[in-house]
Amino acid sequence: MPTQFEPPSGTRDFLAAEYAKREWAFGVLRSVFARYGFEPLQTPAFERLDVLLGKYGDEADKLVFKILRRGEHEASGEADLALRYDMTVPLARVAAAYGSQLPTPYKRYAMGSVWRADRPGRGRFREFTQCDIDTLGSTSPLADAEVLCVHHDAMAALGLTDFTILINSRRVLTGLLEVFAVPPELGAGVLTSLDKLDKLSPREVIEEIAGRGLAEGAAAELVAAMTAADATDRIRTALKPSETGAAGLEELDRLLALVSEQVPAERIAFTPRMVRGLSYYTGPIWELVASGVPGSIGSGGRYDHLIAQLGGPDVPATGSSLGIERVLMLLADRVAGKPGRLDVAVTVLSDDLAARSFSLAAQARSAGLRASVYLGSSGKLGKQLRWAADQGARWCLLYGAAEREAGIVTVRDLVSAEQEAVPVAEVGGYLASRKAMALDG
Amino acid sequence: MPTQFEPPSGTRDFLAAEYAKREWAFGVLRSVFARYGFEPLQTPAFERLDVLLGKYGDEADKLVFKILRRGEHEASGEADLALRYDMTVPLARVAAAYGSQLPTPYKRYAMGSVWRADRPGRGRFREFTQCDIDTLGSTSPLADAEVLCVHHDAMAALGLTDFTILINSRRVLTGLLEVFAVPPELGAGVLTSLDKLDKLSPREVIEEIAGRGLAEGAAAELVAAMTAADATDRIRTALKPSETGAAGLEELDRLLALVSEQVPAERIAFTPRMVRGLSYYTGPIWELVASGVPGSIGSGGRYDHLIAQLGGPDVPATGSSLGIERVLMLLADRVAGKPGRLDVAVTVLSDDLAARSFSLAAQARSAGLRASVYLGSSGKLGKQLRWAADQGARWCLLYGAAEREAGIVTVRDLVSAEQEAVPVAEVGGYLASRKAMALDG
Repeated sequence: MPTQFEPPSGTRDFLAAEYAKREWAFGVLRSVFARYGFEPLQTPAFERLDVLLGKYGDEADKLVFKILRRGEHEASGEADLALRYDMTVPLARVAAAYGSQLPTPYKRYAMGSVWRADRPGRGRFREFTQCDIDTLGSTSPLADAEVLCVHHDAMAALGLTDFTILINSRRVLTGLLEVFAVPPELGAGVLTSLDKLDKLSPREVIEEIAGRGLAEGAAAELVAAMTAADATDRIRTALKPSETGAAGLEELDRLLALVSEQVPAERIAFTPRMVRGLSYYTGPIWELVASGVPGSIGSGGRYDHLIAQLGGPDVPATGSSLGIERVLMLLADRVAGKPGRLDVAVTVLSDDLAARSFSLAAQARSAGLRASVYLGSSGKLGKQLRWAADQGARWCLLYGAAEREAGIVTVRDLVSAEQEAVPVAEVGGYLASRKAMALDG
Repeated sequence: MPTQFEPPSGTRDFLAAEYAKREWAFGVLRSVFARYGFEPLQTPAFERLDVLLGKYGDEADKLVFKILRRGEHEASGEADLALRYDMTVPLARVAAAYGSQLPTPYKRYAMGSVWRADRPGRGRFREFTQCDIDTLGSTSPLADAEVLCVHHDAMAALGLTDFTILINSRRVLTGLLEVFAVPPELGAGVLTSLDKLDKLSPREVIEEIAGRGLAEGAAAELVAAMTAADATDRIRTALKPSETGAAGLEELDRLLALVSEQVPAERIAFTPRMVRGLSYYTGPIWELVASGVPGSIGSGGRYDHLIAQLGGPDVPATGSSLGIERVLMLLADRVAGKPGRLDVAVTVLSDDLAARSFSLAAQARSAGLRASVYLGSSGKLGKQLRWAADQGARWCLLYGAAEREAGIVTVRDLVSAEQEAVPVAEVGGYLASRKAMALDG
């Protein structure tokens, strides 16, 4: 495609087949969310600049698409608006704006585009769809369990079963730093390094931690505990002396018990080394991974003070975000062939018969079928039949001089190549019954 | 709402009820479009600045939201991207980019946000949804008729019947200017003035036309012909000497005949004074008006060279745009009360019973119902029942110590206030059958 006609870098055009696949996935998700009582929220594509900036640090701010002021202010070169970067900042604004009008707890989902001026790459776009579920206003572990189950059910409803939910708790991590005597000022850095145990070797992680200032012996001990075959048991034992650590374990076990009837045991695993990059989590955290997919295809956790930090009210919150673009990549392989555009293609064999062809298509539509007349300029039957086949139509209606004389329409089945003469007034009913038979068969 | 929490000027947040109404309308439209064999197209929210600017004149360019360059280029104060202003420029780009991959003709619909930095007002937003259907690559009058029928059917499917389609032809207008001897250089201005006959008095329009340089007598004659009770007959007679005018009338009559079986005669009217502001139309034009709605709620026509002017290939084209925001305003009055969030609300009467409550909700969902547990902190039954009612739930499940002992769940019907004891394992099936009965009733 010539460069000047490509969509902007990092964005995509979705033609019919791709669009249909995406809409199907979004529809599946919407129905899972609704079944749990989550309700939709749609906010504008852009927010005021001050609402968006300074919320996730300088690195994130650099990735925000800013909108130039307009009219006489355009020349200033200043921005006053920005495209939304995620769904959480708008949620915080909405929570602040509509507080008392919202149900308590407020369980909402948001599915829509977000924009980040990241370097585009495989599976990384500048315009992509984010899909979040969040519950504001509940401290109950049931709220965490519910979000986790929604996330699990959503994957299953999309037909994805080959995934694992890694689960951990911020309290467990805090307890770990405590029992391994990591000085508080090194805590965050050590956790960041531990989070790389899925990419780096234990040796590399130990070195990185030592580089941060922890004694190499302590670093080695910590990494050994995290990577041992019986890591979870060792961590459970190690955490006993820590009050926070023990509380974290209890929190995790409660969550595991709550979801146990819905999430098969082999699909969920306490994973002490799983840290989650973002520091705003306050309770259980989780990450959904699938073989063959780099990174996670979804993640979440409890984040009790983030909404306040983002400008909203100080409400407890828990939520999960689905990496829907990655999910769509996983689905790509298993999508059936392009669906037909039409059920019924209607030929137009001469200008004076066009009005009848037009109303035959209308009859087919009234009977619930997708139908269109031939809109090209060729009067040749062969060319029109090729068009009908290109549309993926099952039936082709022929209405020429002979049919007019007899008051009938010739209905050709493009699969069996059989033809039938059907009285003009009965075409709708005839096609509806053929369609029903085709669906049954 | 405090100002700092409002969405940006001219934009809106859609909470659950409003969102549901909009999604319903979009779904109805999608299904009408698909039934005619139109296929979806989704393009990015922004385009490269050079793709967007200079396409609709300076006035339109001023309304474009421009996106600041990023990184080191941000300080330049320059823009390189812009939010899409309509769906037609992206269509032209797509037609140029994917030419041979697209079906011929290419019948596509596009439904999505567009952004214009207009002054916000009642029913006028800076972010609003546009809904376009267009057929590229067909010169057939059937293509015009089809688009018109889609537009009509879409309104009908939304339950709107109180509207009229005003129809005219650019060729008729050209013929009119010819037979009323309007000098070519005054043509466009005179048409613009005539288009105001629905807002201004005939006297005012005559004066405006005279002000443009046409002799007042000629202006009065023209306006009289347009506004007479028998305007269409007079215009038909007047046009006879003009070849273009006669061709325009023939084109219109052909179109009216083609749609006559689908669009009731009282809903469509040849309206000589209807001009359509935009000058790119080349054949039939139409506008959909409804009583009580200012302006039009949709419009379209044939525009055979616009796609080339916008940077695409030179293909014939015809299309229609639905003013979906205005349609949604019309629908506002007839929308039923807020639908319930849940079918089944599950109480949590003590911590040690929570896991069971959680799995009861899962059972209800497996049976196809929307269900959730109580996520609040109160253990009081009264408070939890109030929550159940707030959710609009039809059934409330009670599971306390007595129920546990008996191995049952108490299912309370919140409409009839009747209660039934149901064995725990049978709750899903029980609720499914109650739901089916409720739907039948």
